[in-house]
Amino acid sequence: MKVSVIGATGYAGAELLRILYQHPQAEVVHVTSESHTGERISALYPHLRGLYDLELESMKDISRIGEDSDFVFIGLPHGHAMEVGKALEKFPVRIIDLGADYRFSNTAVYEEWYHVPHTHPEAERVYGLAELYREEIRRAKIIGNAGCFTTASILALAPLAKHRLIDMNTIIVDAKSGVSGAGRSPKQGNHFPELYDSFKAYNVAHHRHTPEIEQALEELSGETVVLNFTPHLVPMSRGILATCYGTLKQEITAEMVDAAFQKMYGNEYFIRLLGRNGYPATKDVRGSNFCDIAWHIDERTRRVIVLSAIDNLVKGAAGQAVQNFNIACGFEEKMGLDVVPMYP
Amino acid sequence: MKVSVIGATGYAGAELLRILYQHPQAEVVHVTSESHTGERISALYPHLRGLYDLELESMKDISRIGEDSDFVFIGLPHGHAMEVGKALEKFPVRIIDLGADYRFSNTAVYEEWYHVPHTHPEAERVYGLAELYREEIRRAKIIGNAGCFTTASILALAPLAKHRLIDMNTIIVDAKSGVSGAGRSPKQGNHFPELYDSFKAYNVAHHRHTPEIEQALEELSGETVVLNFTPHLVPMSRGILATCYGTLKQEITAEMVDAAFQKMYGNEYFIRLLGRNGYPATKDVRGSNFCDIAWHIDERTRRVIVLSAIDNLVKGAAGQAVQNFNIACGFEEKMGLDVVPMYP
Amino acid sequence: MKVSVIGATGYAGAELLRILYQHPQAEVVHVTSESHTGERISALYPHLRGLYDLELESMKDISRIGEDSDFVFIGLPHGHAMEVGKALEKFPVRIIDLGADYRFSNTAVYEEWYHVPHTHPEAERVYGLAELYREEIRRAKIIGNAGCFTTASILALAPLAKHRLIDMNTIIVDAKSGVSGAGRSPKQGNHFPELYDSFKAYNVAHHRHTPEIEQALEELSGETVVLNFTPHLVPMSRGILATCYGTLKQEITAEMVDAAFQKMYGNEYFIRLLGRNGYPATKDVRGSNFCDIAWHIDERTRRVIVLSAIDNLVKGAAGQAVQNFNIACGFEEKMGLDVVPMYP
Amino acid sequence: MKVSVIGATGYAGAELLRILYQHPQAEVVHVTSESHTGERISALYPHLRGLYDLELESMKDISRIGEDSDFVFIGLPHGHAMEVGKALEKFPVRIIDLGADYRFSNTAVYEEWYHVPHTHPEAERVYGLAELYREEIRRAKIIGNAGCFTTASILALAPLAKHRLIDMNTIIVDAKSGVSGAGRSPKQGNHFPELYDSFKAYNVAHHRHTPEIEQALEELSGETVVLNFTPHLVPMSRGILATCYGTLKQEITAEMVDAAFQKMYGNEYFIRLLGRNGYPATKDVRGSNFCDIAWHIDERTRRVIVLSAIDNLVKGAAGQAVQNFNIACGFEEKMGLDVVPMYP
Repeated sequence: MKVSVIGATGYAGAELLRILYQHPQAEVVHVTSESHTGERISALYPHLRGLYDLELESMKDISRIGEDSDFVFIGLPHGHAMEVGKALEKFPVRIIDLGADYRFSNTAVYEEWYHVPHTHPEAERVYGLAELYREEIRRAKIIGNAGCFTTASILALAPLAKHRLIDMNTIIVDAKSGVSGAGRSPKQGNHFPELYDSFKAYNVAHHRHTPEIEQALEELSGETVVLNFTPHLVPMSRGILATCYGTLKQEITAEMVDAAFQKMYGNEYFIRLLGRNGYPATKDVRGSNFCDIAWHIDERTRRVIVLSAIDNLVKGAAGQAVQNFNIACGFEEKMGLDVVPMYP
Repeated sequence: MKVSVIGATGYAGAELLRILYQHPQAEVVHVTSESHTGERISALYPHLRGLYDLELESMKDISRIGEDSDFVFIGLPHGHAMEVGKALEKFPVRIIDLGADYRFSNTAVYEEWYHVPHTHPEAERVYGLAELYREEIRRAKIIGNAGCFTTASILALAPLAKHRLIDMNTIIVDAKSGVSGAGRSPKQGNHFPELYDSFKAYNVAHHRHTPEIEQALEELSGETVVLNFTPHLVPMSRGILATCYGTLKQEITAEMVDAAFQKMYGNEYFIRLLGRNGYPATKDVRGSNFCDIAWHIDERTRRVIVLSAIDNLVKGAAGQAVQNFNIACGFEEKMGLDVVPMYP
Repeated sequence: MKVSVIGATGYAGAELLRILYQHPQAEVVHVTSESHTGERISALYPHLRGLYDLELESMKDISRIGEDSDFVFIGLPHGHAMEVGKALEKFPVRIIDLGADYRFSNTAVYEEWYHVPHTHPEAERVYGLAELYREEIRRAKIIGNAGCFTTASILALAPLAKHRLIDMNTIIVDAKSGVSGAGRSPKQGNHFPELYDSFKAYNVAHHRHTPEIEQALEELSGETVVLNFTPHLVPMSRGILATCYGTLKQEITAEMVDAAFQKMYGNEYFIRLLGRNGYPATKDVRGSNFCDIAWHIDERTRRVIVLSAIDNLVKGAAGQAVQNFNIACGFEEKMGLDVVPMYP
Repeated sequence: MKVSVIGATGYAGAELLRILYQHPQAEVVHVTSESHTGERISALYPHLRGLYDLELESMKDISRIGEDSDFVFIGLPHGHAMEVGKALEKFPVRIIDLGADYRFSNTAVYEEWYHVPHTHPEAERVYGLAELYREEIRRAKIIGNAGCFTTASILALAPLAKHRLIDMNTIIVDAKSGVSGAGRSPKQGNHFPELYDSFKAYNVAHHRHTPEIEQALEELSGETVVLNFTPHLVPMSRGILATCYGTLKQEITAEMVDAAFQKMYGNEYFIRLLGRNGYPATKDVRGSNFCDIAWHIDERTRRVIVLSAIDNLVKGAAGQAVQNFNIACGFEEKMGLDVVPMYP
């Protein structure tokens, strides 16, 4: 398959190139960047030296991209992918957007949280979280790849929501991310000495991944879900750990929780269940597409605490995109993703 | 005042020496270590070279310590401080224990969580969290210095508990600590490459700081409190951030929350209120005795999220001990502690 | 090829398993550990969960290993590999030792620096630095895989030595390594809080990689080489940067230096020449078998400064071992190693 | 003494405020910033909240600063301090410039390395490295505070230069610095994920601290000095380690080296000699004005390797400035600087 990456110079774009390099069925034909048109990608990312000698093109010549590609990955800031999506509509190309533009079935929710009008609401699209929407992904024209925090959060809570084991209005997701989640553009707040040996929260009660988690849990549970999502910045490069809380319904036992996870994920390659009382660590999944999940039950408070760990740039972005690509193409789901995490 | 440090070779002990060095009214007369008796403290902690040339003694000759000291700080593992406390009973010396032995008014709670019998239940003691128990600390014979996680958690939630702004059965504390909180003894799990660029939880639903937080909040609210406390390990040396959740009672407004914090802490030197929607960072308090606090109100879920940051070795251990020492001695509370945090 | 890993529980052993997982021609049949016999490797390394379910065996039953394996990788501390080497002599198996036992052509040098008698001096062996000893590796029974610091240092200096561009008695190698280079056993000095936000040197003038570098440079230059090698510990997990100094001979020009590097490495896949005035960074090679090299010429002092960066666990250990394995087996040299470095 | 800080918003400026807070004889009267005029310093540096409520002023009203201050500290980029110095000439105020403008006795050297004309060559100035120029500092109108790398390097090599123990044309300084040394302005290269878990060199053979080191060593040795200085970036916030090499003259013994260090620094409070074969670590001096020094002698190569560690923001900038201030004012040299390093 010929694939192109529009907006290739962010961390997710670079990670996509890293993964596609090992993919036996994908050939990268175009990579674009508006601010670095004409430069080689390896000038921006020296680790790619000798491996990718592609020149960054402008996405303005969208027809060429549409004609040359079977699949287009989009790594643009929100609000821009839908323009590309519309422009590519007439081409026989399928799209995976790593941003938020195509993640919401109800574009009003998108507009409320992202403060931009949605210009492509009629798009035939699916939410790109493979373990939950596999069948839809198989046939979709446009896949709105799930976000990083949301992937960790939804996968952690899905069995509880689907099997109605918790009160859906008691959910709190306290999430922690490495700094690559904030993108590659230098900012005062992400300047090395400011973050090193420091820890803090941000966007409390207002992070845009909130409605995305709610959407998925509502579809799973059939109930309205309003929850708290609190992101934090960890002084490390990669990785997300989500600590998810919910109150168990009255009659629910620990064994029923165990069974729900086992039933939902027992056959999922990329979800590794550490079982009750386990402790996922972001380092155990670093560089891989795995999502490690464990759960704890506090009988004193009747809460279940689910812990999930992913690499934000892999299962939380580029790896998930390739997983979706594999599903959409009918390839083996782990093609190009069957690697051992990098430890230590 | 002549002070001694029993169990001086842990991180809290060394930090106590750092702080006492600047204290105009404290003279360190004995420092002890059973495993390093006879060595100089600066051989174990080269940063102390030229500043502390004391030789580590054994605590076996407790009479000498009791006779020579006005105040004894204890930095021993739990279960050992109460033996020292008993042995010192007959001396006119006051004690600050940095461990857990004297933190609980109900020793049955201690025995349940620490799995050792309490051998000194009759001790005349007070919980050493200065902002809440200042008057009691003034006169106490034995001060059970508050724990690190508990200090951050209790100070964050105290105004809400005292003014009954939240349902006390909805409290969740999701806390994150630097690795110095785990002590100085090398362990596989705290080996540098294992933790670097990694993040994980530990002791979910079973951490021993849980009942300590509950005890303080019960005394403040007059209600039974059973809560969730989840600690995490951050790949950094120092600092704790506690993210605390509670559901606001029906009629409570944001302004009432603001007022509660202002009323309780408006005059506290070591508590810096960042106000509603602020973001404390552990780096902003590093090396200091400050506790920075901010709060957020999520009208969608009616939850209040309180964030508090401390340096686990200062306000969470040695600094708080010196604050308590100052109160107990009638000194100015910030004596020896009036420093600017070290940034970056 | 059936391969076994003797001493599989160190970082180099685990990294070897990571790389072999992707190798299309290698099947791991035995993994051993004397201290963890009977445990699963994934119990020690949770990142391997689901990928390696092998049980750790004892190496005592060496015949079984010898009979079942085409190739044996040894990850034991120095002094132990030669015992294994001798025990395997009668089997038609080839050996790659990741330790020091088989690195020296003159075992007296080994005995002087390692303080143990060499019990297998007659072994038919070759120094396992692929770019310099490729032909010998092709046929060797035992390959003494080059050390981590030495790989970075020798590759940096080899063109200068071979083409006699510098005075060989002016060489200084100032090297810096991530902490994984010190192994997985927890020690006080490598306890997380001790190293975090700190930097120091160690083993100045006495590090055992010194004679290994000297041996290779002597063979290249035909001159006696006595040099300074100074290792430092960087507060990071992986990576080595070597900063190498030498004084240019009188008539040598910058262009001659450029040409020497180009000639020696122009066709080497795993050596990426950044050219004169470049800056290799350890992150640019992380997780890969690349060695990035650049050089600077200071006309004021007439010194050339060569910078080389490797991942100490890949090109400095397991990756180089697989590269040697590929050469020895007649496979394509980059088989299993053709990956993009993990950035950021 | 009334002091002002011109250019207070860099890391060195903020560190100066941290130190001056504890200084019993200094009162900060003006702090300036051209880009943040009118803001409170604590808005830029939240760790100063409640401790410094000063408003940042413009330095344009230089007369007010000149009239109100006894001492002015300048924290401006090079090229700007000399303008301030000239403007303050007519006021009875003394100046400590933390930048490079007043460091060179020969302004031609400055102009060659900094590529700007020196507009104040006639200034009555002294090089602000207290241990070497104490007497001159006592009386100077303008003190050109020594740079961070240079302080570590010169202090390491001074005894060898003064006592002529090494060949002065064999000196190599391989130095490593935490990222705060690069300033507070966010840049791509200092973005957190780019540096974390990475190590690299920069400015090889061209760093501007080179001629500063040479100047001091020439004055000490009476010989021309041309040396190599190679800076590296360590993924940590603070600290410099300098590894300095020189070849011992023929008849020089280890004891003569020991004696030279002892003689020169035996009575220096801020220099802690770890002796022959010691290992300074940046963490052992963090937050303090100490310079820890040790040396090693390699009899094989006849080189001496000197290791020195400082906190780049304290002994390498603000602490040294306060030390110079104390000398200039006739205060005790350690006033405001007599603290224990912060460990861990």
